[in-house]
Amino acid sequence: MNKNLRNKRKILNDPVYGFINIPDDIIFDLIEHRYFQRLRRILQLGLTNLVYPGALHTRFHHALGAMHLMGEAVNAIRSKGHRISTEEALAANIAILLHDIGHGPYSHTLEHSLVHGITHEDISETFMGLLNREFNNELELAISIFNNTYKKGFLHQLVSGQLDTDRLDYLRRDSFFTGVSEGVISTDRLIKMLNVNDDELVIEEKGVYSAERFITARRLMYWQVYFHKTVISAESLLLKILQRAKYLTLQGEILFASPSLQVFLKNNITKEEFTRNLEYVEHFSELDDFDILAAIKVWQKHHDFILSELSKRLVNRQLFRVEILRAPVEEAVIAEKKEQVAKKLNISIADADYFAFSGEIANNAYTPGKDRIGVLMKSGEVLDITEASDQIGLELMAKTIRKFYYCYPKEG
Amino acid sequence: MNKNLRNKRKILNDPVYGFINIPDDIIFDLIEHRYFQRLRRILQLGLTNLVYPGALHTRFHHALGAMHLMGEAVNAIRSKGHRISTEEALAANIAILLHDIGHGPYSHTLEHSLVHGITHEDISETFMGLLNREFNNELELAISIFNNTYKKGFLHQLVSGQLDTDRLDYLRRDSFFTGVSEGVISTDRLIKMLNVNDDELVIEEKGVYSAERFITARRLMYWQVYFHKTVISAESLLLKILQRAKYLTLQGEILFASPSLQVFLKNNITKEEFTRNLEYVEHFSELDDFDILAAIKVWQKHHDFILSELSKRLVNRQLFRVEILRAPVEEAVIAEKKEQVAKKLNISIADADYFAFSGEIANNAYTPGKDRIGVLMKSGEVLDITEASDQIGLELMAKTIRKFYYCYPKEG
Amino acid sequence: MNKNLRNKRKILNDPVYGFINIPDDIIFDLIEHRYFQRLRRILQLGLTNLVYPGALHTRFHHALGAMHLMGEAVNAIRSKGHRISTEEALAANIAILLHDIGHGPYSHTLEHSLVHGITHEDISETFMGLLNREFNNELELAISIFNNTYKKGFLHQLVSGQLDTDRLDYLRRDSFFTGVSEGVISTDRLIKMLNVNDDELVIEEKGVYSAERFITARRLMYWQVYFHKTVISAESLLLKILQRAKYLTLQGEILFASPSLQVFLKNNITKEEFTRNLEYVEHFSELDDFDILAAIKVWQKHHDFILSELSKRLVNRQLFRVEILRAPVEEAVIAEKKEQVAKKLNISIADADYFAFSGEIANNAYTPGKDRIGVLMKSGEVLDITEASDQIGLELMAKTIRKFYYCYPKEG
Amino acid sequence: MNKNLRNKRKILNDPVYGFINIPDDIIFDLIEHRYFQRLRRILQLGLTNLVYPGALHTRFHHALGAMHLMGEAVNAIRSKGHRISTEEALAANIAILLHDIGHGPYSHTLEHSLVHGITHEDISETFMGLLNREFNNELELAISIFNNTYKKGFLHQLVSGQLDTDRLDYLRRDSFFTGVSEGVISTDRLIKMLNVNDDELVIEEKGVYSAERFITARRLMYWQVYFHKTVISAESLLLKILQRAKYLTLQGEILFASPSLQVFLKNNITKEEFTRNLEYVEHFSELDDFDILAAIKVWQKHHDFILSELSKRLVNRQLFRVEILRAPVEEAVIAEKKEQVAKKLNISIADADYFAFSGEIANNAYTPGKDRIGVLMKSGEVLDITEASDQIGLELMAKTIRKFYYCYPKEG
Repeated sequence: MNKNLRNKRKILNDPVYGFINIPDDIIFDLIEHRYFQRLRRILQLGLTNLVYPGALHTRFHHALGAMHLMGEAVNAIRSKGHRISTEEALAANIAILLHDIGHGPYSHTLEHSLVHGITHEDISETFMGLLNREFNNELELAISIFNNTYKKGFLHQLVSGQLDTDRLDYLRRDSFFTGVSEGVISTDRLIKMLNVNDDELVIEEKGVYSAERFITARRLMYWQVYFHKTVISAESLLLKILQRAKYLTLQGEILFASPSLQVFLKNNITKEEFTRNLEYVEHFSELDDFDILAAIKVWQKHHDFILSELSKRLVNRQLFRVEILRAPVEEAVIAEKKEQVAKKLNISIADADYFAFSGEIANNAYTPGKDRIGVLMKSGEVLDITEASDQIGLELMAKTIRKFYYCYPKEG
Repeated sequence: MNKNLRNKRKILNDPVYGFINIPDDIIFDLIEHRYFQRLRRILQLGLTNLVYPGALHTRFHHALGAMHLMGEAVNAIRSKGHRISTEEALAANIAILLHDIGHGPYSHTLEHSLVHGITHEDISETFMGLLNREFNNELELAISIFNNTYKKGFLHQLVSGQLDTDRLDYLRRDSFFTGVSEGVISTDRLIKMLNVNDDELVIEEKGVYSAERFITARRLMYWQVYFHKTVISAESLLLKILQRAKYLTLQGEILFASPSLQVFLKNNITKEEFTRNLEYVEHFSELDDFDILAAIKVWQKHHDFILSELSKRLVNRQLFRVEILRAPVEEAVIAEKKEQVAKKLNISIADADYFAFSGEIANNAYTPGKDRIGVLMKSGEVLDITEASDQIGLELMAKTIRKFYYCYPKEG
Repeated sequence: MNKNLRNKRKILNDPVYGFINIPDDIIFDLIEHRYFQRLRRILQLGLTNLVYPGALHTRFHHALGAMHLMGEAVNAIRSKGHRISTEEALAANIAILLHDIGHGPYSHTLEHSLVHGITHEDISETFMGLLNREFNNELELAISIFNNTYKKGFLHQLVSGQLDTDRLDYLRRDSFFTGVSEGVISTDRLIKMLNVNDDELVIEEKGVYSAERFITARRLMYWQVYFHKTVISAESLLLKILQRAKYLTLQGEILFASPSLQVFLKNNITKEEFTRNLEYVEHFSELDDFDILAAIKVWQKHHDFILSELSKRLVNRQLFRVEILRAPVEEAVIAEKKEQVAKKLNISIADADYFAFSGEIANNAYTPGKDRIGVLMKSGEVLDITEASDQIGLELMAKTIRKFYYCYPKEG
Repeated sequence: MNKNLRNKRKILNDPVYGFINIPDDIIFDLIEHRYFQRLRRILQLGLTNLVYPGALHTRFHHALGAMHLMGEAVNAIRSKGHRISTEEALAANIAILLHDIGHGPYSHTLEHSLVHGITHEDISETFMGLLNREFNNELELAISIFNNTYKKGFLHQLVSGQLDTDRLDYLRRDSFFTGVSEGVISTDRLIKMLNVNDDELVIEEKGVYSAERFITARRLMYWQVYFHKTVISAESLLLKILQRAKYLTLQGEILFASPSLQVFLKNNITKEEFTRNLEYVEHFSELDDFDILAAIKVWQKHHDFILSELSKRLVNRQLFRVEILRAPVEEAVIAEKKEQVAKKLNISIADADYFAFSGEIANNAYTPGKDRIGVLMKSGEVLDITEASDQIGLELMAKTIRKFYYCYPKEG
């Protein structure tokens, strides 16, 4: 088909920004590609909708939103007198559009369960390489920006940094769809304050309060949404289900699952195997939230008590009770709880680990240092935001906060 | 477990209204029931997200939102001096909460495909009956309001009428999540203007412009969202896929599908059979969007060319071209197109019907008559909105608008 | 002072659009001019804030908002392949920025009271002429666009037409600040749908529902806000006060008033006198809402009963009762009311006219014909919106609606 | 007139909360009172609109908004099981409605210029006393809540504390009308988290992030809006104008001014004189922004160079340049600047103080201690928010931040 004859839709409605323009034919074609369409079926926030019912926005929508902000960021920086060529702008758009293309279903949860030792960034790179070949190497520049091998480092910072268009979009979008209005940040203002100094992406001094607000909003979203205790409980449960399903499959059981999910249940795939074997990549490209949840729904009636019990709990939202603590739970406490659960459910102490367990969550809202948020002072000097701000506490916000969770059945 | 000891969460975040309160323990228990939890997995707008990527809100969320509005409507009407008892208010809340509980996956599309001659209202009633038994007949009053057998007819109108809390919520919510800001209605103002006159739900005279705006917003949403041509194209495709899958299954093919979906592929179930056979009801209660889409994803590789071809088109959003016309397409035109398609795809003329077809859509934004929107004039008289308004056109808006669509492959 | 050395602020916060950019130095200088700064002290909606307390936005803010939309409209039209030069774009910006510069205080109310037979458009032209001289004829092109003498007629339509950036901004802004959320229009979408055909500003076919919605929103705003009965009552009262003040002044009384207001109380100025006499123009340029209300506040204690009584009513919001009717009030009814009032207040029947009176309001939401809203159909044809729409009623919305009001003291 | 026969409007449109209900007849009557109507003519943020053109909301609107939040706070606290009687709720509503009734025009600026040694709280009390007499002592309970002499101290905290409905409304409203979206706080959520413990207003533990967010938003609004350097410049200018006007008046000059303003120009009124002399109170009750700005507009042409020069600068927004510094400006620097200005303007060094001067601004976002924000932990313990939060920096936010400003003419 003649590419130029196709009717390429150019504007998308977005409740967050109003409209998103598709700025170029190649962007349109990438969006139409099945690798990218797959992101329509992967929720941005996984199981968070069990707590915030509006949180059903997808990685597809987020990627488009981040691309929209990239366009605005490029305009803002150009308006300050810095040159960004048409090719560079397009490549930056492509890089941010594809930055999450390697995310798997319920990604943060399953990242270390379906495959081992492979990050979603690794997989994104693999997919970008495949797309580059399909698109006659038109993605070279985008990939070099993504990998931070392009000479203009600030373009990479716009894709991946502490004030990148990825974070800007997801904070804004996640607060919008969850309804946690306190997490709302002014992406407009932040972007208008962006500048470049000595190849470093910086924020102008008068934007310092907005940047602070961005950091504190991020912290709030972490504790109020991303690490909400019920979300942790649901995600832990999902992980336990997949572990059990994989265990049973490796024992020879055949579970109801799509062919692609079967592949990841049957095999313990290492990073090397994954990148070497195009078949694995292909199967991964077919996997999304629907494979997982459709299977779990069927597993509710599986004869294995543990698998069915866990599956029913997730499908019907009968989640584990969860406690968030400032210190690790003592081993003895967990051991006692396991014993109790084992007795009650008539399972082994080892299997009780599926029902009673603990873990750690950690977050620092901002990390100073090499990848700092730099503030361009009126004097011309660039300071780390923690120095530029008169909010003394910001410096301390750079500290990592660690918390501990402890899950077990409500009834037991 | 002691019901009173359970920690019943009372407030939900909602991006549309801010917060939704759960006003009563039984409401909480109904929400927790697996019949209701199923609605978390059924999108309110089916495939509309293929055009408006934000439109991923569920029937679960809509039902909660409508219940929230019911609470406000009850308060508004009480403030006008009408008595609504605590029991009646609770029953109205339950009735609206459960009004959609019988919706199937991708409901409007599949309503006449999975089962035959059964509306989702029929199924909602069936489910409500089952719940009533489970909840010791505590749903009696709610059911009589739902069925319009309760003496206070205006309560039924709040559940199902031309200005009910169902419409109020879905218009508001659909415009919010699609980002079609022109469809936004002021639910606040409309509800504050509600009153009751002679057991009829009415709107006070000073709310007449708001009511008009509500009707025109509904019309806009129909043509801009619900009947958007790409949505029609996608939904038609989905229907064709299910028809083919059912055809093949009846031929003896075994398709990948969850056990519950299998039941509905294998059997042509009538209304009588459905209501008589609790097993069918049970399987229906396990069916949601995940069963359908997870199956279609696998069917992309099925050996039947038609099934795989249609499935691939849906999953990767390679939809049919669609034309919206003011008159039916001529038979000869369709016949010629089918011939062309049959040749190109190397299939029979009869099978070309899966790829080239036409249909009709019709909508009237408002229907006067028995179930009118009554306006309570300052004089005490109640007029139909078309008479109360000085917008002459409103009367004509009651006319049914008919349009015709015609779908076929883009490439052919 | 070196113009280039001045620090010209380039971005303004706007709660409606987020930010407004000042796109050029001359725009900045025009905004800084005292003629334009005066608009900061003239409310866009006069006394409407007595009903909608948020409606305190000014003509200054509206002019900036309309200019913002002009920038977006120019971009939209350029993106459709039409050439608009930098000079033309700047001139269009200036024309819309200054379109209201001749508005007087409480303008719609006092337009025919302070001066006679002069419209605010006339005065705007006078001011533009003066500014043009001050700015070395840099406003020539802007003025010719404003006057519709420039060859590209669509630029004038963007300044003054039925879908101009003036209306787009005021509808959006007025609904925002009044809180009448039903009047909200999607300026974004409307602007993205703009196009030019044969030098006529048109809207593309797929924007037809948005354009309809714009017309119905305008109608709603007229009846719900601009012609709200309490607003009519307040504006009538203001007019009566000025009439009495002028009457007294012409009788030789000296009222408390700023020197500029004195000039307009003492003289009956015709259009010819106004345009001939620069002193009048200068005094007009010093007049704003503050002159009027500050004087009325003092007049509350004036010894003339009528003046003080009317003034107290306005300042303390003790407005006349007002009835809105579909037919004119009968003369006899008014005469009787006047007699009653005259008796009660111990004034003459003639003076009772200050307290009991009637009038007419009329509005048509849309006027077809020469200055129509044209819709560019996919076929290439341009239709009047009333023909392009399938909302039959729209045609009838073009009809002028006439209503009548009747005011008198509540107590009497 | 029969009170019950009057048509008391019960609902107001508010762009911030949608609607505000007037909950009681006495509230309606208080709003109608000329003392309260005066607040319609006093801007909440004084001259801030010179920087943020939307910031034209009034103390009238703020008082209504705060009353709306009081109603919601009372509901929230009642829902936690605490008894608040109908009388107490009404009194709390009245107390917050009237809390600002003693504010003068451009209040924060002129508080120490029109009168001396009298705070607006003193004047509010005086007005409340007068209203109480007029309303047959129906305001007794409201006054005792306002004065913190009522037994239930938490009601006073809702009127005046670090988490009172005053702050909640003004932060929300100011961020709304300025368009500084980062200052937006979730009043809904904060109010839902309110509780009472041992007669202390507290916030529940799960609201701790919202409370933190509230404190950081307040801090942001201080530096970005309330202490915006251009606002400081404008307010300083206004103060200088009034000082000069008063100086000239005391010298025997008669300036154009309303009679009430004259009183405050001619007399140096102490707190004792003010409270003793009802005439002063009466004149104060007639004073608003219109008196001030209308006079200044006329003063532009006064023969005193200093008065006219300063007045022209304010009216036409030719403000002083302002520098914000972390340390006080050295005396020598100011002295030199004054000398320069004196020379240039041909005025005395002493008078140069009208044109070149410095000052200090200070803010602490939160003050721990007696009037702390207490957090009710799940354990039942109440902690100061700085201890309850894991945001270490919050404690430091309690520190007072001091900055210094330095103003002088731009032209040198």
